[in-house]
Formats: sequence, structure tokens, C-alpha cells
Amino acid sequence: MSEQTMPNWLDQRAFLTPERTALVTDEESLTFAELQHRAKDRASRLSTLGIHKGDHIAVYAKSSVEMVQIVHALSYLGVVGVLLNTRLTIDELVFQVTDAGCVYVVGEDGFKDTLHELTQKTDIPSLSFGELMSSEARSVDFLKEVTMEDPYTILYTSGTTGSPKGVLLSYSNHWWSAVSSALNLGITEKDQWLAALPLFHVGGLSILMKSVIYGMPVHLHTSFDVEKVHDAIMNKGVTTVSVVTVMLDGLMDRLGTERYPDEFRGMLLGGGPAPEPLLYKAKEKSVPVFQSYGMTETSSQIVTLSPDYALNKIGSAGKPLFPAQLSIEVDGKRAASDEIGEIVVKGPMVTKGYYRRPETNEDTIQKEWLRTGDLGYVDEDGFLYVVDRRKDLIISGGENIYPAEIEGVLSGMDQVKEVGVVGKEDQKWGSVPVAFIVRREGTSLTKEDVLTFCNDRLASYKQPKELYFVDHLPRNATNKLLRRELANWLKQRRNVQ
Amino acid sequence: MSEQTMPNWLDQRAFLTPERTALVTDEESLTFAELQHRAKDRASRLSTLGIHKGDHIAVYAKSSVEMVQIVHALSYLGVVGVLLNTRLTIDELVFQVTDAGCVYVVGEDGFKDTLHELTQKTDIPSLSFGELMSSEARSVDFLKEVTMEDPYTILYTSGTTGSPKGVLLSYSNHWWSAVSSALNLGITEKDQWLAALPLFHVGGLSILMKSVIYGMPVHLHTSFDVEKVHDAIMNKGVTTVSVVTVMLDGLMDRLGTERYPDEFRGMLLGGGPAPEPLLYKAKEKSVPVFQSYGMTETSSQIVTLSPDYALNKIGSAGKPLFPAQLSIEVDGKRAASDEIGEIVVKGPMVTKGYYRRPETNEDTIQKEWLRTGDLGYVDEDGFLYVVDRRKDLIISGGENIYPAEIEGVLSGMDQVKEVGVVGKEDQKWGSVPVAFIVRREGTSLTKEDVLTFCNDRLASYKQPKELYFVDHLPRNATNKLLRRELANWLKQRRNVQ
Repeated sequence: MSEQTMPNWLDQRAFLTPERTALVTDEESLTFAELQHRAKDRASRLSTLGIHKGDHIAVYAKSSVEMVQIVHALSYLGVVGVLLNTRLTIDELVFQVTDAGCVYVVGEDGFKDTLHELTQKTDIPSLSFGELMSSEARSVDFLKEVTMEDPYTILYTSGTTGSPKGVLLSYSNHWWSAVSSALNLGITEKDQWLAALPLFHVGGLSILMKSVIYGMPVHLHTSFDVEKVHDAIMNKGVTTVSVVTVMLDGLMDRLGTERYPDEFRGMLLGGGPAPEPLLYKAKEKSVPVFQSYGMTETSSQIVTLSPDYALNKIGSAGKPLFPAQLSIEVDGKRAASDEIGEIVVKGPMVTKGYYRRPETNEDTIQKEWLRTGDLGYVDEDGFLYVVDRRKDLIISGGENIYPAEIEGVLSGMDQVKEVGVVGKEDQKWGSVPVAFIVRREGTSLTKEDVLTFCNDRLASYKQPKELYFVDHLPRNATNKLLRRELANWLKQRRNVQ
Repeated sequence: MSEQTMPNWLDQRAFLTPERTALVTDEESLTFAELQHRAKDRASRLSTLGIHKGDHIAVYAKSSVEMVQIVHALSYLGVVGVLLNTRLTIDELVFQVTDAGCVYVVGEDGFKDTLHELTQKTDIPSLSFGELMSSEARSVDFLKEVTMEDPYTILYTSGTTGSPKGVLLSYSNHWWSAVSSALNLGITEKDQWLAALPLFHVGGLSILMKSVIYGMPVHLHTSFDVEKVHDAIMNKGVTTVSVVTVMLDGLMDRLGTERYPDEFRGMLLGGGPAPEPLLYKAKEKSVPVFQSYGMTETSSQIVTLSPDYALNKIGSAGKPLFPAQLSIEVDGKRAASDEIGEIVVKGPMVTKGYYRRPETNEDTIQKEWLRTGDLGYVDEDGFLYVVDRRKDLIISGGENIYPAEIEGVLSGMDQVKEVGVVGKEDQKWGSVPVAFIVRREGTSLTKEDVLTFCNDRLASYKQPKELYFVDHLPRNATNKLLRRELANWLKQRRNVQ
């Protein structure tokens, strides 16, 4: 059987509904025909730079029309986009562009300095969007079809093991994610989706994919501004918004006693469990909330709770999307109802694996089932409850932070003998990282030393918000760090200096 | 790469939305949970009869709840369903069940006599639905997943060559057809689709597939009754109806000066081009009509015109569904805009081929492109206009009739030297078959002889409605029958006795 192909998505969309709105920002509004024209222009410039099918290029930008154009441009060349989190430090960026084997870095004009620094440190050429526009655009042969199993994007995540790994998502993964969501939430011609989540996160990127596949306008916000999002819902026809808890909270406060227009369809809530009071608050204001569970590896949501069940299944992430399956495993066996175990998922939106991590892939993906590392249970009606995110994942304002990654960085300090990191509840961010350090004997390490060390090496949201020096760390018989015990220490202020 | 699988569709649907209505008839209404229960019951009885994965069984029934249950039952066993047109003669039925290699025939109780006759003539065992229900139901292992590339149904069509051939449609074909339609027409939770087209036609069957994939109620009518369909739209929440021209015409007459409820979304019109006056009539009554082009080989519609364009692109069948592609070919090359050529289509809803027809498949499907044999052109905006259905196809009340098939049967009479069949415009049916016969010298064949001969061999809708004895038939230099010239004879009553 030959490989499955499809017409290039943006070409097909621009052919089917050229005049429909594709993208709305404060500055401009583009139809699909216009977006296609510009994306092809960018593609021809990239091609003229010598970037070809199968190459990996890094994209370093906040959400913008230009970034959207670049992402679509990649599809005309068969080039894989490594979408960099703009909050990373230079060391983290260097690691990702090198690890992903990028042949080029393109980024927004405001990041020129970082682009230069990246090139200096890696020898990988870089170019700002503005520079790209003054480069040559020779006419090139664009790919008329996408090959569904080809990779389209690489997004880095620390996944289950704590060290950053590039998640390969194919056209097929993105396609199935968009289609599965449509089968669950429906599609109408009035739909307009607001993206305030960054496009370098799968939660934002998946909205772009829905846009071109559904033929749906996307309202693109560079960052989350509660006032602007509120206004877009109230006055600009936005029907759906992807949010994380902290955003939903802000929006509900802003809504006050007002009501969203009848056309508003709902909030797709991802990035960690929602506190019950917030769900009640939304219910009170007649705001439908689709709670969901997903991760980069599943191309965004793979389990979603319909608003009908938002309150009688409170705390549940729902049921799998139609083509997906879910299982809870304990010691390699399927758990009984209500029994807590590892959440294991399968479906066509699940990644085929991490880039250049054969061993991790073997451990993580078995017979097409992805071991998420997250703990949960399924009730007798089949609804999923997520008990604990994988490996003590800390979700801070929608960003995933892996304790193991921070521990790895801090262990690099000579004066650090042992280190343990846990999340601490935070009113605003949901959770923030806190570090416990055992100093090496004879050294005098200060909190300032540690924070200075972190500055270059960890994005600010990953830097410990509290630091404690302790005599020892809680470990089990096999010397495994007991993070849950650390969390107890924190609560009880035990062993904490 | 391993084969793509998906959870069994009815299982997944019954798991996700057990209480949603699946099926509504005059007699009963079933939820997806109930439908699942009954389909599994039927599956276990079929299995107990010794019917196993990969077997082909024929289903001989008009649209009914029982037939729907059987179709879903097949999916639990991996059995391929050969859905027989109930209007066929016994000879035609014998050909199809034999050609398709059926190991069993199941059919509705009212057809017991025909089932017995089929068994006598073919040695293939048969059973009525009632008999199946009194057979044993042992507990069996149902397939939990469907393998997407596995065949699910075989529907016979005479296709481009005039002799009946079984079109293999896989789970994947049906899936993509349903999903592609959703991306085009949208899905909302209020959708309820009415199926008055027989389920043994792809136009009816595709509604069943949409039902289980979307989680949408289907109103199942055993036959088209204008009063009942009108009532279902006006009073029972039906939002979409699949129709052929003759049905739409009847419905528009019945509607008179009334208006359908606001929730009514539209008529999906298939099975041949619509006359302009009818489209204007629908427009006048604010009834959205989705004109479409498709065939059994494309799992129903593959090209659809959105109602926005119903009148400024009058006569057009529209543009391809999102994952599909369309090309017009003249002498193996892509035609220019407005140039008439053969319609060639590609997409994941297109059959992989006819059952046991390797040569036809080689001719018909080249590099995944299906040569439809239909003639058409694409205007400069990319809209398809179908000029002539394949090989002089006669579409009569939504049924496809192939002149070559009727000619083949009539040639079987000793007294017939030559025969040519063409369609004749008909007020009610759109078109009806008319035969021109050159008698063998020295024989005295009457119209009655011919019709008696046809009775056993051709379904009544295929029997010539007019018969003319002529001296010769119009042929070109290579002796090819010129059916278009026959049509002229008919119009001008030339050469006609």
C-alpha cells in the first residue's frame, strides 16, 4: 500500500473557501487566499536559502501572523518545524536546536540578539523574519500534497523522564487531532476560535490546524490579556477559547455579572485539573467548560469532558475522543474501575515517538499505546480522573515544569550534594517549583548563588520560587527520592531551615 | 508500520454517548446502548452459525432496524456484508451472491421464498432474520477494534463497463466519507438525518455510518413516502435528508407555501444532476440544497456544492471534499478550464477496487486515481460540471441503470441480432431505458416476447419502458454503437417503427 497523502491543507482550504477569514489580529485580518499567498512567498524564500524537504528548522517567535505564515510555509517544502518556547534561556535553546538537528533558525525581529547568540554558539545560521523578507524569493516547486506520516512539527517537552525531548508530530497526528475534536465538539460555520496560548505549545498550534482543516477563523493574541479576550468574546464573534486554569479564572472574574453572547460555545480547558470552585463559578455564569486531558505527545486533548457532565462528573477529564482509547494499568495489567494506575492511551493523534530517543520510545510507546506516566483512574461509567501528573509534573500557568529537569540543572553546581524539587500550590499560577538542597560538606552555598546559577540555565518560570537547605532528602529503601514526602515537609515546614 | 485500527465504532459510540438516540422508526426508537446490545446479540448468533472473520455474507432486506443491527453485527465479527438490492430478479441475485463468494444469505422474513430459491439455485445456505433470532446465541469473542483497511461492505454496481461488479468499501472508506462530509457540512448536536434511500445503496448506507461516527440519530424510512418525510421534517426534528431529484421534487410540491422549521439544515441531493427549475423552486421556498456528485466507488458524495453557490453556480456539483481531489482528463492529460473530459477522482473515500476484477481495477484505478468514466468539466473557479454520466448511464428515480447490462441480457435471446439501449427523459423518474432491437433474419420477435424474457432477468426498473424494432443500429467506423445517435433517433422518431 502506498503512503496516504492529502492535498496540501492550505492550498485545499484556499481553493475551497478562498474568501473565508483565516486569521484575525489587532492589526489585520487575512482570508485563506491571502494566507496561502503569503505562506507560499515565505516558502519560496526559505527554499532559496537552501532549505529543503526533510530539513529541520527552528522557529523562534511569539504568536504572530508571520509565525502562522511560516508554519504553513513549511508544509509547502516538507520541512519540519521545531517550535521553540520563547521563554527558554539561551542554554536551553542551544540544546534544543542542536538536539533537533536544525539547519536554520528563523525568528521574530525582536529576538535578533538571541538569534545571533544562538548562531554563535551552535554555528547554525539564523535569520529574522524581516531579514527573510529581504532575502530572495525564487520560484520553486511546492509540494502539492502532504504525506500524512511525514513529521510536520517537533515540540520539546520533558515528558516522563525529565530531560527535554523533541516530540515528533506528523501531519496525520495533527489531522486526527483536529478531526477528533470536531467529532466531539461539533463544527458550525459560525465557529471562531481564539488562540491566546502560544503557538509553540501544542494547545495553541492545534488551533491553527483546526483553522485550516475546518476553514475556521482564528483570533490570534500574542499573549493572554484578560481584557482583550473578554472583548473578543463579547464583541468580535469568538465562539471558543482554549484556556488553562489561570486564564479561565481571570475571565470569570472579568465577566462578573455579565453574560457571554448566546453564540459563545465554550472554553476548552487544558493544562491541568481545574479546581472545583472555578467550575462552579463558570456554571453559575452559564459558561460551558470542556475539561480535557492531553499532552504534547497526544497533539493536545485526547480525553475531553462534555459540559453536560461538567458538574456531575466534577474533577473528571472525561472520555477519550472517538478514535482514541484509554486504559489504566497497574503492573502491566488493566486496572479495575476506580483503581489508580498509570494512564495509557492509544489513537491516531498519538506521536510515533521522540526525535532520536530510541530507548525512551521503546519504553514509552508499546504496541501503539503511550505510557503517559500520569496517574489516574476510570470510574464505572468510563470517565477518567487524573490523580497526579507524570513524575510530579508541576503545571504553572499552563507551562509544564519537570522537577527532574530542575534537579538536573542544580546538580550541576559543585556545592550541591543532593537536590529535590516539588511543586507548591500557588493562588495565581496553580503551582510553582520549590527546591530542597543538601549542601556538599565544607561548602557555603547561598540562595543567591543558586538563583544566579539558574538564571542562565532555566527559563524564569522554571526557576525555584523558594529554596530550602536541608540535612538530608527523604528517600525510600532503593534510595529513590520521595517527592511526595518533600511536599509534606513543605506543608508542615518540617526539616526546613 | 502496523495497520491502523480504531475501537469498534458502535462500541465506542455506545461508550461515549450511550443514551443518545441512534435510530428512529415508526415503531421504535433505539439508543446507541440498545443498538449495541442488539447488534452484539445478532453477531453472536451469526458466529454460532459458523460465520467467521473474513467471510462474506449477503444481506437481503429493505431498510429496517433489523437490517441496521445486522450491518453493525458484521463489524463485531470482521465479516463483510454484501448488501443486495431488493429489486433485483432471482437471476441477478444468484449472480451477485455467487460472484461475491457469500457463505450465507440472511434476509428479511417477507423474503423467505426468495431466500429459499436462492439457496436452491446456489447451495448457499440462507436464513431469515426471524429464523436467525430463534437460532442459538453462544457467547463469542467480539472484535474490539476495526482494522481500517479491512473491507466492510460490498455493493454491486455496473460501474463503467456495464456488467455488475462488487465495490469493496473498507472501514477506512466509510470513515473518511463520514468525516469529510462533516468537515464540509458541519456537525451539531441537533442534527438528525433522514434515510429514505435504501441502505443497500451507498447513499443510504453512508447515513448509517455518519450516525455511529457522529453520534447522530437517524430516522429510518423503509421507502420514500413524501407525506412521511414532510412530517418528519416539520414535526420530528429532522435536520437533513438525503434525496434524489424525484424525491426533492415531490417534497417541494408537498411543501407548497409552508416553510420548514429554522432548524432544518438542508437536502443532500445525489444521484444525478438536478433540473434548474427545481433548484429555483427550492430556493424560493428557502430550502438549502447541497448538490453533490458521487458514486458507490467513492462511498457516496466526493464533490459537493454548498448552498451559497446553489444558484450562481447552477448545474454545478461543486468542489471536492477536503481530503479529495478532482481532475478532468483528456487523452491522459489534465484538461484546461472549461474543457470537457473524463472525471478522475482521488481520496481516502475511494474504493481500493472491485472484488475479483483485477483487470477492471487496473484499468479503472491508476495511482490511486479513479477513472469514473463520467464526462465533465471544471470552470475557472474550480467548480465541477457533470456533462454526462459514465457510459450513457441511465439514472431512473435514483437507481443506476447501465445500457450495456440490458443489452447484454437482450442479446441472450436467439431472435435478437443487435440491440442498443438508451435513456429517455421521463417526467417522473428523470430517465427510463428504451431498447432498439434488430431482429435476426427469419425470426418474428414481438415486444411481448422481449418483455417476458426480461421479467426473469432484469429488475423491473431496468426493463425497457419502450421497445423499437429497427433495420440497423447507428455505429461508427470501428463498429462501436453510437448511443447518442440512438437518442437522436428517439427524439426525431427517425428509423423507428
